[in-house]
Amino acid sequence: MKLPAQVTVVEVGPRDGLQNEPFFLETGLKAELINCLIEAGFKRIEATSFVRPEWIPQLRDAEEVLKLVGRPPGVRLSALVPNLKGYQRAVSSGIAEINMVVSASELHNRKNVNRSIEESLRDFARIAGAARGDGILVRGSVAVSFGCPYQGGVDPGKVIGLASALWDMGCCEVVLADTIGCANPVQVYRVVSAVLEKIPGICLAAHFHDTRGMGLANVLAALQAGVAVFDSSIGGLGGCPYAPGAPGNIATEDLVNMLAAMDVETGIDLTRVIKCADRLQRKGEKRLR
Amino acid sequence: MKLPAQVTVVEVGPRDGLQNEPFFLETGLKAELINCLIEAGFKRIEATSFVRPEWIPQLRDAEEVLKLVGRPPGVRLSALVPNLKGYQRAVSSGIAEINMVVSASELHNRKNVNRSIEESLRDFARIAGAARGDGILVRGSVAVSFGCPYQGGVDPGKVIGLASALWDMGCCEVVLADTIGCANPVQVYRVVSAVLEKIPGICLAAHFHDTRGMGLANVLAALQAGVAVFDSSIGGLGGCPYAPGAPGNIATEDLVNMLAAMDVETGIDLTRVIKCADRLQRKGEKRLR
Repeated sequence: MKLPAQVTVVEVGPRDGLQNEPFFLETGLKAELINCLIEAGFKRIEATSFVRPEWIPQLRDAEEVLKLVGRPPGVRLSALVPNLKGYQRAVSSGIAEINMVVSASELHNRKNVNRSIEESLRDFARIAGAARGDGILVRGSVAVSFGCPYQGGVDPGKVIGLASALWDMGCCEVVLADTIGCANPVQVYRVVSAVLEKIPGICLAAHFHDTRGMGLANVLAALQAGVAVFDSSIGGLGGCPYAPGAPGNIATEDLVNMLAAMDVETGIDLTRVIKCADRLQRKGEKRLR
Repeated sequence: MKLPAQVTVVEVGPRDGLQNEPFFLETGLKAELINCLIEAGFKRIEATSFVRPEWIPQLRDAEEVLKLVGRPPGVRLSALVPNLKGYQRAVSSGIAEINMVVSASELHNRKNVNRSIEESLRDFARIAGAARGDGILVRGSVAVSFGCPYQGGVDPGKVIGLASALWDMGCCEVVLADTIGCANPVQVYRVVSAVLEKIPGICLAAHFHDTRGMGLANVLAALQAGVAVFDSSIGGLGGCPYAPGAPGNIATEDLVNMLAAMDVETGIDLTRVIKCADRLQRKGEKRLR
Protein backbone atom coordinates (compact mmCIF):
# COMPACT_ATOMS: atom_id res chain seq x y z
CA MET A 1 0.00 0.00 0.00
CA LYS A 2 1.81 3.07 -1.28
CA LEU A 3 1.07 6.30 0.55
CA PRO A 4 2.83 9.67 0.58
CA ALA A 5 5.29 10.12 3.45
CA GLN A 6 3.88 13.53 4.25
CA VAL A 7 0.44 15.09 4.04
CA THR A 8 -0.80 18.65 4.45
CA VAL A 9 -4.02 19.00 6.39
CA VAL A 10 -5.94 22.17 5.56
CA GLU A 11 -8.23 23.06 8.43
CA VAL A 12 -11.53 24.36 7.03
CA GLY A 13 -13.64 24.30 10.21
CA PRO A 14 -13.62 28.08 10.81
CA ARG A 15 -15.12 28.61 7.34
CA ASP A 16 -16.78 25.57 5.81
CA GLY A 17 -17.56 24.16 9.23
CA LEU A 18 -19.00 27.18 10.99
CA GLN A 19 -20.99 28.39 7.99
CA ASN A 20 -23.04 25.21 8.15
CA GLU A 21 -23.70 25.29 11.88
CA PRO A 22 -26.94 26.73 13.21
CA PHE A 23 -25.25 29.09 15.70
CA PHE A 24 -23.10 32.21 15.51
CA LEU A 25 -19.76 31.76 17.19
CA GLU A 26 -18.68 35.10 18.62
CA THR A 27 -15.84 36.85 16.84
CA GLY A 28 -13.47 36.49 19.79
CA LEU A 29 -14.13 32.77 20.01
CA LYS A 30 -13.57 32.34 16.27
CA ALA A 31 -10.19 34.06 16.58
CA GLU A 32 -9.39 31.97 19.64
CA LEU A 33 -10.21 28.82 17.68
CA ILE A 34 -7.96 29.82 14.79
CA ASN A 35 -5.14 30.72 17.17
CA CYS A 36 -5.51 27.35 18.91
CA LEU A 37 -5.34 25.61 15.54
CA ILE A 38 -2.16 27.51 14.67
CA GLU A 39 -0.67 26.41 17.99
CA ALA A 40 -1.63 22.81 17.19
CA GLY A 41 0.60 23.02 14.13
CA PHE A 42 -1.69 23.84 11.21
CA LYS A 43 0.08 25.80 8.50
CA ARG A 44 -3.01 26.26 6.38
CA ILE A 45 -6.40 27.31 7.71
CA GLU A 46 -9.46 28.46 5.81
CA ALA A 47 -10.34 31.19 8.27
CA THR A 48 -13.45 32.85 6.93
CA SER A 49 -15.46 33.88 3.92
CA PHE A 50 -16.00 37.17 2.13
CA VAL A 51 -19.51 36.48 0.97
CA ARG A 52 -22.36 38.87 1.60
CA PRO A 53 -23.22 38.82 5.32
CA GLU A 54 -26.92 38.31 4.50
CA TRP A 55 -26.02 35.03 2.76
CA ILE A 56 -23.87 33.56 5.48
CA PRO A 57 -24.60 35.46 8.69
CA GLN A 58 -22.44 33.02 10.66
CA LEU A 59 -19.37 34.55 9.00
CA ARG A 60 -20.50 38.17 8.89
CA ASP A 61 -17.46 39.15 10.98
CA ALA A 62 -14.77 38.12 8.47
CA GLU A 63 -12.70 41.31 8.75
CA GLU A 64 -12.91 41.42 12.55
CA VAL A 65 -11.84 37.78 12.90
CA LEU A 66 -8.80 38.33 10.70
CA LYS A 67 -7.78 41.36 12.79
CA LEU A 68 -7.75 39.21 15.92
CA VAL A 69 -5.78 36.21 14.70
CA GLY A 70 -2.03 35.78 14.83
CA ARG A 71 -0.24 35.27 11.56
CA PRO A 72 3.09 33.72 12.41
CA PRO A 73 5.55 33.16 9.56
CA GLY A 74 4.84 29.98 7.63
CA VAL A 75 1.13 30.02 8.45
CA ARG A 76 -1.16 30.61 5.50
CA LEU A 77 -4.66 31.80 6.24
CA SER A 78 -7.20 31.72 3.46
CA ALA A 79 -10.72 32.96 2.87
CA LEU A 80 -13.46 32.00 0.50
CA VAL A 81 -14.14 34.62 -2.13
CA PRO A 82 -17.26 34.32 -4.34
CA ASN A 83 -16.72 37.31 -6.62
CA LEU A 84 -14.67 40.45 -7.33
CA LYS A 85 -16.34 42.39 -4.56
CA GLY A 86 -15.43 39.66 -2.07
CA TYR A 87 -11.94 39.69 -3.49
CA GLN A 88 -11.53 43.39 -2.73
CA ARG A 89 -12.54 42.77 0.88
CA ALA A 90 -10.06 39.88 1.02
CA VAL A 91 -7.24 42.07 -0.26
CA SER A 92 -7.98 44.74 2.32
CA SER A 93 -7.89 42.14 5.07
CA GLY A 94 -4.36 41.13 4.11
CA ILE A 95 -5.25 37.47 3.56
CA ALA A 96 -2.50 35.25 2.06
CA GLU A 97 -4.75 32.97 0.04
CA ILE A 98 -8.24 32.96 -1.42
CA ASN A 99 -10.46 30.02 -2.28
CA MET A 100 -12.79 30.17 -5.28
CA VAL A 101 -15.47 27.51 -5.69
CA VAL A 102 -17.17 26.41 -8.87
CA SER A 103 -19.48 23.41 -9.15
CA ALA A 104 -19.06 20.53 -11.57
CA SER A 105 -22.84 20.60 -12.05
CA GLU A 106 -24.49 23.53 -13.81
CA LEU A 107 -27.57 23.30 -11.62
CA HIS A 108 -25.58 23.20 -8.39
CA ASN A 109 -23.54 26.21 -9.47
CA ARG A 110 -26.72 28.15 -10.18
CA LYS A 111 -28.28 27.19 -6.84
CA ASN A 112 -25.03 27.90 -5.02
CA VAL A 113 -23.94 31.20 -6.53
CA ASN A 114 -26.74 32.13 -8.92
CA ARG A 115 -24.47 32.01 -11.96
CA SER A 116 -23.59 29.66 -14.77
CA ILE A 117 -20.32 27.76 -14.59
CA GLU A 118 -19.08 29.88 -17.49
CA GLU A 119 -19.86 33.10 -15.65
CA SER A 120 -18.09 31.78 -12.55
CA LEU A 121 -14.99 30.89 -14.54
CA ARG A 122 -14.93 34.27 -16.29
CA ASP A 123 -15.07 36.05 -12.95
CA PHE A 124 -12.48 33.74 -11.43
CA ALA A 125 -10.03 34.37 -14.26
CA ARG A 126 -10.21 38.09 -13.55
CA ILE A 127 -9.81 37.50 -9.81
CA ALA A 128 -6.88 35.14 -10.41
CA GLY A 129 -5.22 37.78 -12.60
CA ALA A 130 -5.68 40.42 -9.92
CA ALA A 131 -4.44 38.05 -7.22
CA ARG A 132 -1.27 37.40 -9.18
CA GLY A 133 -0.57 41.13 -9.19
CA ASP A 134 -1.42 41.40 -5.49
CA GLY A 135 0.77 38.46 -4.50
CA ILE A 136 -2.17 36.45 -3.20
CA LEU A 137 -2.34 32.70 -3.69
CA VAL A 138 -5.48 31.27 -5.26
CA ARG A 139 -7.00 27.92 -4.47
CA GLY A 140 -9.64 26.63 -6.87
CA SER A 141 -12.29 24.21 -5.67
CA VAL A 142 -14.48 22.01 -7.80
CA ALA A 143 -17.65 21.44 -5.78
CA VAL A 144 -19.82 18.32 -6.23
CA SER A 145 -16.93 16.60 -8.02
CA PHE A 146 -18.33 13.19 -7.11
CA GLY A 147 -22.06 13.74 -7.25
CA CYS A 148 -24.67 16.48 -7.18
CA PRO A 149 -27.83 16.72 -5.07
CA TYR A 150 -29.77 18.00 -8.09
CA GLN A 151 -28.51 16.10 -11.10
CA GLY A 152 -27.08 12.97 -9.43
CA GLY A 153 -24.00 11.62 -11.17
CA VAL A 154 -21.28 13.98 -12.35
CA ASP A 155 -19.21 13.35 -15.46
CA PRO A 156 -15.52 13.01 -14.54
CA GLY A 157 -14.79 14.78 -17.83
CA LYS A 158 -16.53 17.86 -16.44
CA VAL A 159 -14.36 17.67 -13.31
CA ILE A 160 -11.21 17.36 -15.40
CA GLY A 161 -12.30 20.32 -17.54
CA LEU A 162 -12.90 22.56 -14.53
CA ALA A 163 -9.73 21.46 -12.74
CA SER A 164 -7.84 22.22 -15.91
CA ALA A 165 -9.46 25.66 -16.26
CA LEU A 166 -8.67 26.55 -12.64
CA TRP A 167 -5.12 25.28 -12.93
CA ASP A 168 -4.54 27.15 -16.17
CA MET A 169 -5.78 30.43 -14.75
CA GLY A 170 -3.03 30.21 -12.13
CA CYS A 171 -4.50 28.44 -9.13
CA CYS A 172 -1.75 27.07 -6.90
CA GLU A 173 -3.92 24.08 -6.04
CA VAL A 174 -7.17 22.55 -7.19
CA VAL A 175 -9.51 20.88 -4.70
CA LEU A 176 -11.83 18.06 -5.69
CA ALA A 177 -14.69 18.42 -3.25
CA ASP A 178 -17.26 15.81 -2.32
CA THR A 179 -19.61 18.56 -1.23
CA ILE A 180 -22.55 16.35 -0.26
CA GLY A 181 -20.60 13.32 0.92
CA CYS A 182 -21.61 10.83 -1.74
CA ALA A 183 -18.22 9.72 -3.08
CA ASN A 184 -16.96 6.17 -2.75
CA PRO A 185 -13.35 5.01 -2.66
CA VAL A 186 -13.31 3.38 -6.10
CA GLN A 187 -14.79 6.51 -7.66
CA VAL A 188 -12.33 8.72 -5.78
CA TYR A 189 -9.42 6.64 -6.97
CA ARG A 190 -10.64 6.78 -10.57
CA VAL A 191 -11.47 10.48 -10.71
CA VAL A 192 -8.27 11.53 -8.94
CA SER A 193 -6.16 9.27 -11.16
CA ALA A 194 -7.85 10.66 -14.27
CA VAL A 195 -7.30 14.28 -13.21
CA LEU A 196 -3.64 13.64 -12.40
CA GLU A 197 -3.15 11.86 -15.69
CA LYS A 198 -4.88 14.48 -17.84
CA ILE A 199 -3.37 17.52 -16.13
CA PRO A 200 0.31 16.78 -15.61
CA GLY A 201 1.89 18.69 -12.74
CA ILE A 202 -1.40 19.78 -11.16
CA CYS A 203 -1.35 20.21 -7.37
CA LEU A 204 -4.43 18.40 -6.17
CA ALA A 205 -6.23 18.44 -2.85
CA ALA A 206 -9.30 16.52 -1.74
CA HIS A 207 -12.23 17.55 0.42
CA PHE A 208 -14.49 14.85 1.84
CA HIS A 209 -17.53 14.68 4.02
CA ASP A 210 -18.30 11.76 6.29
CA THR A 211 -21.97 11.42 5.45
CA ARG A 212 -22.15 7.63 5.40
CA GLY A 213 -19.00 6.76 7.32
CA MET A 214 -16.93 6.68 4.15
CA GLY A 215 -14.89 9.83 4.77
CA LEU A 216 -11.63 8.21 5.82
CA ALA A 217 -12.00 5.39 3.29
CA ASN A 218 -12.18 8.08 0.62
CA VAL A 219 -9.07 9.70 2.07
CA LEU A 220 -7.28 6.36 1.87
CA ALA A 221 -8.26 5.96 -1.78
CA ALA A 222 -7.17 9.51 -2.62
CA LEU A 223 -3.85 8.98 -0.83
CA GLN A 224 -3.26 5.88 -2.91
CA ALA A 225 -4.09 7.79 -6.08
CA GLY A 226 -1.51 10.44 -5.18
CA VAL A 227 -3.27 13.20 -3.23
CA ALA A 228 -1.25 14.66 -0.35
CA VAL A 229 -3.38 17.64 0.68
CA PHE A 230 -6.68 17.14 2.51
CA ASP A 231 -9.31 19.46 3.90
CA SER A 232 -10.87 18.60 7.23
CA SER A 233 -12.88 20.32 9.88
CA ILE A 234 -12.13 20.41 13.60
CA GLY A 235 -14.66 18.35 15.52
CA GLY A 236 -16.33 17.42 12.23
CA LEU A 237 -17.90 20.90 12.21
CA GLY A 238 -20.37 21.59 9.49
CA GLY A 239 -23.14 19.57 8.07
CA CYS A 240 -24.76 18.98 4.79
CA PRO A 241 -27.87 20.99 3.98
CA TYR A 242 -29.05 18.07 1.82
CA ALA A 243 -28.67 15.36 4.45
CA PRO A 244 -30.30 16.32 7.75
CA GLY A 245 -28.54 14.72 10.70
CA ALA A 246 -25.59 13.65 8.63
CA PRO A 247 -22.09 14.46 9.80
CA GLY A 248 -20.23 17.26 8.04
CA ASN A 249 -16.66 17.45 6.84
CA ILE A 250 -14.36 14.69 7.92
CA ALA A 251 -13.22 15.49 11.44
CA THR A 252 -9.68 16.83 11.62
CA GLU A 253 -8.90 14.74 14.69
CA ASP A 254 -10.01 11.55 12.89
CA LEU A 255 -7.91 12.42 9.84
CA VAL A 256 -4.81 13.39 11.81
CA ASN A 257 -5.20 10.28 13.97
CA MET A 258 -5.41 7.98 10.97
CA LEU A 259 -2.47 9.60 9.23
CA ALA A 260 -0.36 9.43 12.40
CA ALA A 261 -1.30 5.77 12.88
CA MET A 262 -0.13 5.06 9.34
CA ASP A 263 3.15 6.94 9.95
CA VAL A 264 2.23 9.68 7.50
CA GLU A 265 3.77 12.93 8.72
CA THR A 266 1.45 15.95 9.19
CA GLY A 267 3.34 18.14 11.68
CA ILE A 268 0.14 18.43 13.72
CA ASP A 269 -0.14 17.77 17.43
CA LEU A 270 -3.12 15.43 17.82
CA THR A 271 -3.52 16.05 21.55
CA ARG A 272 -3.85 19.78 20.95
CA VAL A 273 -6.30 19.18 18.11
CA ILE A 274 -8.51 17.11 20.41
CA LYS A 275 -8.35 19.84 23.07
CA CYS A 276 -9.42 22.38 20.43
CA ALA A 277 -12.31 20.14 19.38
CA ASP A 278 -13.45 19.56 22.97
CA ARG A 279 -13.37 23.26 23.75
CA LEU A 280 -15.23 24.10 20.56
CA GLN A 281 -17.87 21.47 21.26
CA ARG A 282 -18.56 23.00 24.65
CA LYS A 283 -18.87 26.47 23.13
CA GLY A 284 -21.12 25.20 20.37
CA GLU A 285 -23.35 23.29 22.75
CA LYS A 286 -23.70 26.35 24.93
CA ARG A 287 -24.82 28.36 21.90
CA LEU A 288 -27.35 25.73 20.89
CA ARG A 289 -29.01 25.59 24.29
CA MET B 1 -7.67 -0.29 -7.16
CA LYS B 2 -8.23 -4.02 -7.20
CA LEU B 3 -11.19 -5.28 -5.20
CA PRO B 4 -13.03 -8.60 -5.12
CA ALA B 5 -16.15 -8.70 -7.31
CA GLN B 6 -18.18 -10.26 -4.52
CA VAL B 7 -18.13 -9.97 -0.75
CA THR B 8 -19.91 -11.90 1.98
CA VAL B 9 -21.24 -9.79 4.81
CA VAL B 10 -21.64 -11.71 8.06
CA GLU B 11 -24.19 -9.99 10.27
CA VAL B 12 -23.01 -10.15 13.90
CA GLY B 13 -25.42 -7.67 15.46
CA PRO B 14 -27.67 -10.23 17.17
CA ARG B 15 -24.63 -11.61 19.02
CA ASP B 16 -21.62 -9.30 19.17
CA GLY B 17 -23.84 -6.25 18.91
CA LEU B 18 -26.54 -7.06 21.45
CA GLN B 19 -24.15 -8.50 24.00
CA ASN B 20 -22.50 -5.11 24.30
CA GLU B 21 -25.69 -3.10 24.61
CA PRO B 22 -26.98 -2.10 28.03
CA PHE B 23 -30.49 -3.44 27.47
CA PHE B 24 -32.10 -6.85 27.06
CA LEU B 25 -33.93 -7.22 23.77
CA GLU B 26 -36.87 -9.53 24.29
CA THR B 27 -36.57 -12.98 22.77
CA GLY B 28 -39.36 -12.38 20.29
CA LEU B 29 -37.76 -9.16 19.08
CA LYS B 30 -34.40 -10.88 18.69
CA ALA B 31 -35.98 -13.54 16.52
CA GLU B 32 -37.85 -10.89 14.57
CA LEU B 33 -34.57 -9.07 13.98
CA ILE B 34 -32.86 -12.21 12.71
CA ASN B 35 -35.82 -13.03 10.47
CA CYS B 36 -35.74 -9.48 9.06
CA LEU B 37 -32.04 -9.87 8.36
CA ILE B 38 -32.66 -13.14 6.53
CA GLU B 39 -35.30 -11.39 4.45
CA ALA B 40 -32.82 -8.63 3.65
CA GLY B 41 -30.61 -11.24 2.03
CA PHE B 42 -28.05 -12.22 4.67
CA LYS B 43 -26.85 -15.79 4.26
CA ARG B 44 -24.70 -15.76 7.37
CA ILE B 45 -25.78 -14.39 10.73
CA GLU B 46 -24.15 -14.78 14.12
CA ALA B 47 -27.38 -15.27 15.97
CA THR B 48 -26.46 -15.76 19.60
CA SER B 49 -23.95 -17.05 22.10
CA PHE B 50 -23.79 -20.16 24.25
CA VAL B 51 -21.91 -18.61 27.14
CA ARG B 52 -23.10 -18.83 30.72
CA PRO B 53 -26.17 -16.62 31.13
CA GLU B 54 -24.62 -14.95 34.19
CA TRP B 55 -21.75 -13.73 32.02
CA ILE B 56 -23.82 -12.30 29.20
CA PRO B 57 -27.38 -11.87 30.46
CA GLN B 58 -28.33 -10.06 27.24
CA LEU B 59 -28.06 -13.40 25.42
CA ARG B 60 -29.45 -15.67 28.13
CA ASP B 61 -32.21 -16.76 25.76
CA ALA B 62 -30.00 -18.41 23.12
CA GLU B 63 -32.03 -21.62 22.81
CA GLU B 64 -35.36 -19.78 22.74
CA VAL B 65 -34.19 -17.38 20.03
CA LEU B 66 -33.02 -20.20 17.81
CA LYS B 67 -36.37 -21.95 18.19
CA LEU B 68 -38.15 -18.87 16.87
CA VAL B 69 -36.06 -18.07 13.82
CA GLY B 70 -36.58 -19.35 10.33
CA ARG B 71 -33.78 -21.34 8.78
CA PRO B 72 -34.36 -21.27 5.04
CA PRO B 73 -32.01 -23.29 2.87
CA GLY B 74 -28.75 -21.51 2.15
CA VAL B 75 -28.90 -19.47 5.33
CA ARG B 76 -26.21 -20.30 7.86
CA LEU B 77 -26.81 -19.25 11.44
CA SER B 78 -23.93 -19.37 13.86
CA ALA B 79 -23.41 -18.99 17.59
CA LEU B 80 -20.44 -18.16 19.73
CA VAL B 81 -19.21 -21.09 21.77
CA PRO B 82 -16.65 -20.51 24.54
CA ASN B 83 -16.08 -24.09 25.68
CA LEU B 84 -17.21 -27.71 25.43
CA LYS B 85 -20.25 -27.10 27.59
CA GLY B 86 -21.35 -24.30 25.30
CA TYR B 87 -20.68 -26.56 22.36
CA GLN B 88 -23.09 -29.16 23.71
CA ARG B 89 -25.80 -26.53 23.99
CA ALA B 90 -25.02 -25.41 20.44
CA VAL B 91 -25.35 -28.95 19.10
CA SER B 92 -28.70 -29.39 20.81
CA SER B 93 -29.95 -26.17 19.27
CA GLY B 94 -29.22 -27.45 15.79
CA ILE B 95 -26.96 -24.55 14.86
CA ALA B 96 -25.07 -24.82 11.54
CA GLU B 97 -21.89 -23.05 12.59
CA ILE B 98 -20.05 -22.15 15.76
CA ASN B 99 -17.60 -19.33 16.38
CA MET B 100 -14.66 -19.83 18.75
CA VAL B 101 -12.66 -16.79 19.88
CA VAL B 102 -9.09 -16.71 21.10
CA SER B 103 -7.10 -13.53 21.74
CA ALA B 104 -3.75 -12.69 20.22
CA SER B 105 -2.74 -11.27 23.60
CA GLU B 106 -2.25 -13.58 26.58
CA LEU B 107 -3.56 -10.98 28.99
CA HIS B 108 -6.67 -10.27 26.95
CA ASN B 109 -7.43 -13.98 26.65
CA ARG B 110 -7.18 -14.34 30.42
CA LYS B 111 -9.40 -11.32 31.06
CA ASN B 112 -11.85 -12.47 28.42
CA VAL B 113 -12.19 -16.17 29.13
CA ASN B 114 -10.06 -16.74 32.23
CA ARG B 115 -7.75 -19.13 30.43
CA SER B 116 -4.33 -19.07 28.77
CA ILE B 117 -4.16 -19.03 25.00
CA GLU B 118 -2.78 -22.56 25.14
CA GLU B 119 -5.72 -23.76 27.20
CA SER B 120 -8.14 -22.10 24.77
CA LEU B 121 -6.49 -23.76 21.79
CA ARG B 122 -6.51 -27.16 23.47
CA ASP B 123 -10.20 -26.86 24.17
CA PHE B 124 -10.92 -25.57 20.68
CA ALA B 125 -9.12 -28.50 19.07
CA ARG B 126 -11.43 -30.88 20.92
CA ILE B 127 -14.48 -28.86 19.98
CA ALA B 128 -13.36 -28.68 16.34
CA GLY B 129 -12.92 -32.46 16.33
CA ALA B 130 -16.40 -32.98 17.75
CA ALA B 131 -17.87 -30.48 15.31
CA ARG B 132 -16.38 -32.34 12.38
CA GLY B 133 -18.19 -35.47 13.55
CA ASP B 134 -21.40 -33.54 14.11
CA GLY B 135 -21.29 -31.83 10.72
CA ILE B 136 -21.05 -28.37 12.24
CA LEU B 137 -18.90 -25.69 10.64
CA VAL B 138 -16.36 -23.94 12.84
CA ARG B 139 -15.29 -20.35 12.55
CA GLY B 140 -12.17 -19.33 14.44
CA SER B 141 -11.70 -15.72 15.52
CA VAL B 142 -8.46 -14.09 16.58
CA ALA B 143 -9.46 -11.27 18.93
CA VAL B 144 -7.31 -8.14 19.40
CA SER B 145 -5.42 -8.99 16.19
CA PHE B 146 -4.45 -5.36 15.74
CA GLY B 147 -3.96 -4.15 19.29
CA CYS B 148 -4.84 -5.01 22.87
CA PRO B 149 -6.28 -2.77 25.57
CA TYR B 150 -3.89 -4.30 28.12
CA GLN B 151 -0.60 -4.86 26.37
CA GLY B 152 -0.90 -2.34 23.51
CA GLY B 153 0.76 -3.55 20.31
CA VAL B 154 0.26 -7.12 19.13
CA ASP B 155 2.95 -9.03 17.27
CA PRO B 156 1.70 -10.00 13.80
CA GLY B 157 3.67 -13.23 14.26
CA LYS B 158 1.34 -14.11 17.13
CA VAL B 159 -1.69 -13.47 14.88
CA ILE B 160 -0.23 -15.64 12.14
CA GLY B 161 0.48 -18.41 14.67
CA LEU B 162 -3.07 -18.40 16.00
CA ALA B 163 -4.67 -18.14 12.56
CA SER B 164 -2.54 -21.09 11.53
CA ALA B 165 -3.53 -23.13 14.59
CA LEU B 166 -7.23 -22.44 14.03
CA TRP B 167 -6.98 -23.20 10.33
CA ASP B 168 -5.07 -26.41 10.99
CA MET B 169 -7.62 -27.67 13.50
CA GLY B 170 -10.26 -27.51 10.78
CA CYS B 171 -11.85 -24.08 10.97
CA CYS B 172 -13.61 -23.23 7.73
CA GLU B 173 -12.68 -19.59 8.15
CA VAL B 174 -10.44 -17.50 10.37
CA VAL B 175 -11.49 -14.00 11.43
CA LEU B 176 -8.97 -11.30 12.21
CA ALA B 177 -10.80 -9.11 14.70
CA ASP B 178 -10.00 -5.54 15.64
CA THR B 179 -11.82 -6.05 18.91
CA ILE B 180 -11.19 -2.59 20.37
CA GLY B 181 -11.17 -0.63 17.14
CA CYS B 182 -7.55 0.46 17.05
CA ALA B 183 -6.40 -0.86 13.67
CA ASN B 184 -5.32 1.42 10.86
CA PRO B 185 -5.46 0.69 7.12
CA VAL B 186 -1.71 0.29 6.60
CA GLN B 187 -1.53 -2.17 9.50
CA VAL B 188 -4.57 -4.05 8.24
CA TYR B 189 -3.05 -4.35 4.80
CA ARG B 190 0.23 -5.61 6.23
CA VAL B 191 -1.18 -8.10 8.72
CA VAL B 192 -3.73 -9.49 6.27
CA SER B 193 -1.11 -9.81 3.54
CA ALA B 194 1.26 -11.55 5.93
CA VAL B 195 -1.40 -14.04 7.07
CA LEU B 196 -2.42 -14.82 3.49
CA GLU B 197 1.20 -15.26 2.48
CA LYS B 198 2.17 -17.48 5.41
CA ILE B 199 -0.96 -19.66 5.40
CA PRO B 200 -1.67 -20.51 1.75
CA GLY B 201 -5.31 -21.30 1.07
CA ILE B 202 -6.64 -19.90 4.33
CA CYS B 203 -10.17 -18.46 4.19
CA LEU B 204 -9.89 -15.13 5.92
CA ALA B 205 -12.54 -12.75 7.26
CA ALA B 206 -12.14 -9.40 8.95
CA HIS B 207 -14.02 -7.82 11.83
CA PHE B 208 -13.67 -4.10 12.41
CA HIS B 209 -15.01 -1.54 14.82
CA ASP B 210 -15.53 2.08 13.92
CA THR B 211 -14.06 3.58 17.05
CA ARG B 212 -12.28 6.51 15.44
CA GLY B 213 -14.07 6.67 12.10
CA MET B 214 -11.59 4.29 10.51
CA GLY B 215 -13.89 1.27 10.14
CA LEU B 216 -14.61 1.52 6.43
CA ALA B 217 -11.06 2.63 5.64
CA ASN B 218 -9.91 -0.59 7.29
CA VAL B 219 -12.41 -2.54 5.21
CA LEU B 220 -11.02 -0.92 2.07
CA ALA B 221 -7.48 -1.90 3.04
CA ALA B 222 -8.53 -5.47 3.83
CA LEU B 223 -10.40 -5.73 0.52
CA GLN B 224 -7.27 -4.64 -1.30
CA ALA B 225 -5.22 -7.21 0.59
CA GLY B 226 -7.64 -9.93 -0.49
CA VAL B 227 -10.32 -10.31 2.20
CA ALA B 228 -13.82 -10.98 0.87
CA VAL B 229 -15.73 -11.76 4.09
CA PHE B 230 -16.57 -9.03 6.59
CA ASP B 231 -18.41 -8.94 9.87
CA SER B 232 -20.67 -6.00 10.59
CA SER B 233 -23.47 -5.15 12.93
CA ILE B 234 -26.87 -3.80 12.01
CA GLY B 235 -27.22 -0.18 13.13
CA GLY B 236 -23.63 -0.28 14.40
CA LEU B 237 -24.95 -2.21 17.41
CA GLY B 238 -22.49 -2.93 20.13
CA GLY B 239 -19.84 -0.82 21.74
CA CYS B 240 -16.43 -1.25 23.13
CA PRO B 241 -16.13 -1.75 26.88
CA TYR B 242 -12.73 -0.06 26.72
CA ALA B 243 -13.83 3.07 24.91
CA PRO B 244 -16.88 4.68 26.51
CA GLY B 245 -19.02 6.54 23.99
CA ALA B 246 -17.21 5.02 21.04
CA PRO B 247 -19.18 3.38 18.27
CA GLY B 248 -19.25 -0.39 18.08
CA ASN B 249 -18.87 -2.71 15.15
CA ILE B 250 -18.96 -1.15 11.74
CA ALA B 251 -22.58 -0.60 10.82
CA THR B 252 -23.92 -3.12 8.33
CA GLU B 253 -25.78 -0.43 6.41
CA ASP B 254 -22.57 1.62 6.02
CA LEU B 255 -20.65 -1.43 4.84
CA VAL B 256 -23.32 -2.63 2.43
CA ASN B 257 -23.75 0.92 1.11
CA MET B 258 -20.02 1.33 0.46
CA LEU B 259 -19.72 -2.06 -1.22
CA ALA B 260 -22.76 -1.37 -3.41
CA ALA B 261 -21.38 2.04 -4.36
CA MET B 262 -18.14 0.36 -5.42
CA ASP B 263 -20.05 -2.24 -7.46
CA VAL B 264 -19.01 -5.07 -5.16
CA GLU B 265 -21.79 -7.64 -5.08
CA THR B 266 -23.20 -8.64 -1.65
CA GLY B 267 -26.67 -9.96 -2.47
CA ILE B 268 -28.08 -7.78 0.30
CA ASP B 269 -30.99 -5.38 -0.06
CA LEU B 270 -29.79 -2.08 1.41
CA THR B 271 -33.27 -0.60 1.76
CA ARG B 272 -34.37 -3.56 3.85
CA VAL B 273 -31.22 -3.34 5.96
CA ILE B 274 -31.94 0.30 6.72
CA LYS B 275 -35.52 -0.56 7.66
CA CYS B 276 -34.18 -3.27 10.03
CA ALA B 277 -31.78 -0.76 11.58
CA ASP B 278 -34.48 1.89 12.02
CA ARG B 279 -36.85 -0.56 13.64
CA LEU B 280 -34.13 -1.87 15.93
CA GLN B 281 -33.13 1.63 16.94
CA ARG B 282 -36.68 2.41 17.99
CA LYS B 283 -36.86 -0.81 20.02
CA GLY B 284 -33.49 -0.13 21.62
CA GLU B 285 -34.37 3.44 22.50
CA LYS B 286 -37.60 2.32 24.08
CA ARG B 287 -35.68 -0.15 26.24
CA LEU B 288 -33.18 2.50 27.33
CA ARG B 289 -35.84 4.97 28.44
